[in-house]
Amino acid sequence: MPNPTAAMLVIGDEILSGRTRDANMHHLAGKLTEVGIDFIEARVISDRTEAIVAALNELRERADYVFTSGGIGPTHDDITADAVAEAFGVRIGVRDDARQLLETYYAERNIELNQSRLRMARIPDGATLIENPVSVAPGFVIGNVHVMAGVPSIFEAMLASVLPTLTGGAPLQSRTIRIERGEGDVARPLSNLAEAYPDLMIGSYPFMDNGIYGANVVLRGTDPERLQEAEARLLEYFEA
Amino acid sequence: MPNPTAAMLVIGDEILSGRTRDANMHHLAGKLTEVGIDFIEARVISDRTEAIVAALNELRERADYVFTSGGIGPTHDDITADAVAEAFGVRIGVRDDARQLLETYYAERNIELNQSRLRMARIPDGATLIENPVSVAPGFVIGNVHVMAGVPSIFEAMLASVLPTLTGGAPLQSRTIRIERGEGDVARPLSNLAEAYPDLMIGSYPFMDNGIYGANVVLRGTDPERLQEAEARLLEYFEA
Repeated sequence: MPNPTAAMLVIGDEILSGRTRDANMHHLAGKLTEVGIDFIEARVISDRTEAIVAALNELRERADYVFTSGGIGPTHDDITADAVAEAFGVRIGVRDDARQLLETYYAERNIELNQSRLRMARIPDGATLIENPVSVAPGFVIGNVHVMAGVPSIFEAMLASVLPTLTGGAPLQSRTIRIERGEGDVARPLSNLAEAYPDLMIGSYPFMDNGIYGANVVLRGTDPERLQEAEARLLEYFEA
Repeated sequence: MPNPTAAMLVIGDEILSGRTRDANMHHLAGKLTEVGIDFIEARVISDRTEAIVAALNELRERADYVFTSGGIGPTHDDITADAVAEAFGVRIGVRDDARQLLETYYAERNIELNQSRLRMARIPDGATLIENPVSVAPGFVIGNVHVMAGVPSIFEAMLASVLPTLTGGAPLQSRTIRIERGEGDVARPLSNLAEAYPDLMIGSYPFMDNGIYGANVVLRGTDPERLQEAEARLLEYFEA
């Protein structure tokens, strides 16, 4: 059975303008690989409702799980929750349980829960909250879409609470073999190996270290025995 | 007149598996902002022909310029050039000028120009070469699509040679104002500011430094006077 699939939507003008470098995609990629979910696509789009709705509706059809990051804070450019509601065709409003979380948090800190902060309790109808252990304002799950914060520490915390709820497949294992030959010399044996092991993913990543050039060959698959076999065959070739 | 737009396609299983963290998107974002081209979308997809063809045909319709990174080396998983030819419905084969570049480069280094390396001279019909000052194997431009290497040093060098050929708009300027108040206190004045200055993009990015929390407000626009005005108005509000 093939592994379940995931896609990500990074919402943020600050990434596209070059002001901020996204960190959440790389974090998500590592975690999904660990639990055996195939990450098939990531998109970075700007803070525009139409762009979010269109991309979300495409990705949630295509992947088993979708993760969004960004745009769920209190300011005017935080439009993700409303866009998600629009994509699903459901209503959105301040929800009591989310408001309660914010009330408690801000009261303890003597900070006013004003209209702007209250925006963070706006949750589309039918969604389930995702806990935010960093700053309380919750994310949410609706259908197969997981809506999470853009701030990396919060994104990571939300993902940690969501991951155990997902059904993964066989975790992908990988072996990296460093070969100090030009990628052009590695290409032919790799191509043969790929034909003999269609169940493995075989990638080659060139490097150049202090004048030594070569390629890191990465074998990926779910069956450790097949990986070991393929690795042995590759090493044999290059030692011959 | 609105600025021209750009989109990016990052081709690479190694990014989606979490093995490698993409660096080219952030580099491209900064460069596009400098020359006044609006970066509207980036996608990361896997090394599959159908995925590349579909995404490329969507993005080249939507943006004035498209940039791809990855998948133009000599190994079996380097399928970008063939996928681009398929997307444009043109033929692809080894081209004499590209082969000549590789012959000279490898001859000087006493390295065999084998069939695998020769793959890097496969160029779709009608394309123009992009110089690769790092390792010679060229990128290419076809239509509005710029096909470049995934290795960051090569991607950056190729982009540097391509940028002067693009028509930019008014460069986006930005001002960052650090406000040591919770984002929830900044939200209302920012929303007012956004209404008064619809020509500016106004973003708010929360931070927490050694227990001081606040927001970096970023104003972006092409008219320095409008930016200065908006900045003054914001500062006035928070000093009052």
